[in-house]
Amino acid sequence: MTTVAAYAAPAAKAPLERTTIERRPVGEFDVLIDIKFAGICHSDIHQARDGWGGAIFPMVPGHEITGVVAEVGSGVTKFAVGDRVGVGCMVDSCRECENCRAGLEQYCLQGNVATYNARDKNGDPTYGGYSAQVVVDENFTLHIPDGLSLDAAAPLLCAGITTYSPLHHWNAGPGKKVAVVGMGGLGHMGVKIAHALGAEVTVLSQSLRKKDDGLRLGADHYYATSDPKTFEELRGTFDIILSTVSAPINLDAFLSLLRTDGALVNVGAPEEPVSLNLFSLLGGRKTLAGSGIGGIRETQEMLDFCAEHGLGAEIELIEASQINEAYERVLDSDVRYRFVIDVATI
Amino acid sequence: MTTVAAYAAPAAKAPLERTTIERRPVGEFDVLIDIKFAGICHSDIHQARDGWGGAIFPMVPGHEITGVVAEVGSGVTKFAVGDRVGVGCMVDSCRECENCRAGLEQYCLQGNVATYNARDKNGDPTYGGYSAQVVVDENFTLHIPDGLSLDAAAPLLCAGITTYSPLHHWNAGPGKKVAVVGMGGLGHMGVKIAHALGAEVTVLSQSLRKKDDGLRLGADHYYATSDPKTFEELRGTFDIILSTVSAPINLDAFLSLLRTDGALVNVGAPEEPVSLNLFSLLGGRKTLAGSGIGGIRETQEMLDFCAEHGLGAEIELIEASQINEAYERVLDSDVRYRFVIDVATI
Repeated sequence: MTTVAAYAAPAAKAPLERTTIERRPVGEFDVLIDIKFAGICHSDIHQARDGWGGAIFPMVPGHEITGVVAEVGSGVTKFAVGDRVGVGCMVDSCRECENCRAGLEQYCLQGNVATYNARDKNGDPTYGGYSAQVVVDENFTLHIPDGLSLDAAAPLLCAGITTYSPLHHWNAGPGKKVAVVGMGGLGHMGVKIAHALGAEVTVLSQSLRKKDDGLRLGADHYYATSDPKTFEELRGTFDIILSTVSAPINLDAFLSLLRTDGALVNVGAPEEPVSLNLFSLLGGRKTLAGSGIGGIRETQEMLDFCAEHGLGAEIELIEASQINEAYERVLDSDVRYRFVIDVATI
Repeated sequence: MTTVAAYAAPAAKAPLERTTIERRPVGEFDVLIDIKFAGICHSDIHQARDGWGGAIFPMVPGHEITGVVAEVGSGVTKFAVGDRVGVGCMVDSCRECENCRAGLEQYCLQGNVATYNARDKNGDPTYGGYSAQVVVDENFTLHIPDGLSLDAAAPLLCAGITTYSPLHHWNAGPGKKVAVVGMGGLGHMGVKIAHALGAEVTVLSQSLRKKDDGLRLGADHYYATSDPKTFEELRGTFDIILSTVSAPINLDAFLSLLRTDGALVNVGAPEEPVSLNLFSLLGGRKTLAGSGIGGIRETQEMLDFCAEHGLGAEIELIEASQINEAYERVLDSDVRYRFVIDVATI
């Protein structure tokens, strides 16, 4: 066991504070990673405050992790000391169910092991990226291509794959019109990726406050959903609407913006049930769907795609002491577009 | 103009009664059909009672029509006098939009012209199949293959295509597990068609009352949704769930029965909004979709498929004088599985 520095929430709704945690010994197929950067995902805040229930404390959040390999187990073949690597939202899965065998570990039928706020196969709690080091099985470790800086790459491990996977699955590309709802951590990556995939991209945001950024990052159009004219003007327009917001949206109104056979895909989700008129789906054979992160193989594919197209996240680098303040700013949507912790400051 | 006998609702909620209506002269591309049979669809009752608003009275319902060609216009090439033919839920569309050009006239971007309770391109009201004759453009007329009797074929024009189209679109076939929710007019055709397509078919009905019929018509399994154990036992089972019921269902519970990447497709829809937890879609990349009837080309394909597999509807033939009584019995779910009017009795 190794004792490492970390930032943890000691209890629900308590501020995060500096502490130490134990990391397991490096096993045969494990990689020990010196963490360099950890992104702050909105779901870190949900979980640190026990918003979904069942949280395990103390909690070390962080599932947008980049770093450098410090040690490898004797059976490791995919990584060597010094490699630039990343870890996302999961660190293990059953590896035997049909979904795992198909590379869909995120939908493991036994449930995957989340990077933090979960228990591993031995029943030990998992701790995330707000820490100096982490030990991860090589099969759940990703290569960060040379073209990506480690700080801007960190948010790709969640925000990047969460938007890439559905855009890819629902065939965003040339000739397709894609709308991205919400211009936050997920949304800004959705815009970059949909644009790089060749789609015509529209941002649907509450206001026009971030319009300049949206257009700069690759959007072709930018509309405010607070303006009712938006819904008249864009009726029947989109092949894919990617909703990245976790606040409840008017599903019927957004479904009216889809073309025949279009799909509204949610990657954010409100905690409360939403209301839906099923007739909104019948006229035009429309799809309302959900998508959760991506598989390991697909995550590597996403990283390679982002490196090829020069797509890092837009980040605001902070010191560990600023984490609690950053949480408040995320809740106020006051971040462009992802806080990333410089782990050297923990 | 030709005056023909018909059964019409004179006003919302008034009983249907015998009357006469005018049919337009046979135009260049028109077919005059001696109607032999007309199915009673649940939506006939909705509309005759103005359940969706905006109804046009007097109303002659009926969009499950079969008969024999009595006369053809000078430009008609697809039909000859004596041909056995059918007419479904629509009698015209714009024919120019991308959906019409793609054979998706049911999703015509200008709105298709419904067979009754609508206005045609001249602004005249359309009247449906509870009548002795109808004049229809040949492009919205279907051939009834020899293998199908005209009475059992009538319900295929709505109940058949409404279930065939989504089963076909979402790839029901060998190796796929399909659940059909509801064992009524639509549901019993869904069972027959899904079975003929080669899928493993499960009926999910409120009770086991119609279990023997379900198994006889092609279901491999039959479960009561009133039994909570059904939802435990079948969790994560189906590739496709086809919901044919128009009462609100517990969407979250039914979505839990889908496999990863599965689709819950609604062809019935309640008038009131339903509640949905979007997390039910995220875990397993699930789809909630809707589907409405089918295009003309696809409807012909469905009729040919049904003839090839010997699939008519299970019907109860009635005289026109029994229509009002039949409506009450449909509302009581007391029909196995479709009332069909012998139009000779009008």
